Amino acid sequence: MESIRFEYNDFLACCGSTKFAKEMASMSPFTNLDEAVHAARDIWFNKVDVAGWIEAFSAHPQIGQTPSSAHPKDMSAQWSKGEQSTALATGTATTLQELADWNAKYRQKFGSVFLICASGRGTLEILNELKRRYSNRPIVEFEIAAQEQMKITELRLAMLFSAKINAAAPVDQ
Amino acid sequence: MESIRFEYNDFLACCGSTKFAKEMASMSPFTNLDEAVHAARDIWFNKVDVAGWIEAFSAHPQIGQTPSSAHPKDMSAQWSKGEQSTALATGTATTLQELADWNAKYRQKFGSVFLICASGRGTLEILNELKRRYSNRPIVEFEIAAQEQMKITELRLAMLFSAKINAAAPVDQ
Repeated sequence: MESIRFEYNDFLACCGSTKFAKEMASMSPFTNLDEAVHAARDIWFNKVDVAGWIEAFSAHPQIGQTPSSAHPKDMSAQWSKGEQSTALATGTATTLQELADWNAKYRQKFGSVFLICASGRGTLEILNELKRRYSNRPIVEFEIAAQEQMKITELRLAMLFSAKINAAAPVDQ
Repeated sequence: MESIRFEYNDFLACCGSTKFAKEMASMSPFTNLDEAVHAARDIWFNKVDVAGWIEAFSAHPQIGQTPSSAHPKDMSAQWSKGEQSTALATGTATTLQELADWNAKYRQKFGSVFLICASGRGTLEILNELKRRYSNRPIVEFEIAAQEQMKITELRLAMLFSAKINAAAPVDQ
C-alpha cells in the first residue's frame, strides 16, 4: 500500500498541541494507521511537555456545549459534534443543566475543561464520570485527562486515514 | 505560645503560586510551624491546579544564576541566593558552564526551569541530578519538580517563622 501523507493542520485537528502536530507532520507519511498511532503515543506521552498537554485540552469545547455552527472546514469542531452526539441525544434539559453545573465546578477546581472520550457515551455516564473524577487530586486528574485525549486522538487519526483511503479508492462505475 | 500571623506576600515568597499564597493567608494565623507546613502540603498537593504549579516553578531563577543584585525586600530572590550558596561556592567555571548548558536542554524539553531543593548541595551533585532527571517523561518530571518545590517551601516557611520568633523575643540587656 502506498504511504499516506497528512499535513500539520490535519494532526492539529486530532490533538491541539502544536508540538504534537509538528512532530507528527515531520514523521509523515505513515504507511498505515497503526504506525501513526504508535508515533502519536510516543510523541504525546514522552515528548509533549505539560504546557503542551494544557494547550491540547484547551482546544476542546466544554462537553455538552459543542459549537452548533462550526465551520465545515473546522475538522476538530466537527469531530467534537460527532463524538458528543450520543451524549447530546440522551440528555434531558435537567441532565444537560447538571452537566453544565458540574463542568463549571470542575473548571473552577482544575482550571481546564473536563476531558473525556465521549464517543458512544450517554449523558448520565459522562456525568457520573465527571462527579467521580472531581474528587481527584489535580495531578492525578491531569494524567487521566491526557489518557482521554490520547483516546480521542486515536479515533480522529482513524477517521483521517479512513477519509483518505476512501477518497483514494477507485469509484465503481 | 501566641499564634503567628503572616501576610499574602510572605507566603508568595515561600511558593510563587497565587492560589497557594491566598489559601495560606486565609488560614493564617498558625499556632506553630508544623501546623503551617501541614496546611501548605494540603494546599500544594490537593488544591493548587497544574497551572498553579507551573506558575510557582516560573518564580524561580535558573539554578546557578541567582540574581546578584536582588532587592533586599525581595525575599524569594534573597532566599534563592542563600539556598544556592553551596552550589555556587563549589562550582568551577567549567561545571557552572555545564550546568547552564544542561539547564538550557532541560528547559527545551520540559518548558520550565530545572527545580531542585539546592540547600547544602554542591554543583556536581545538582548537575548529576539534572542529567538523571532529564531522561524522565514530562509528567514524571513535573511531579518530581512539585515535590522539590514543597521542600523549598518548607525550608522557607521555617525561615519565616524563625525570623518572626526572633523578632518577637525579648532582648537581653
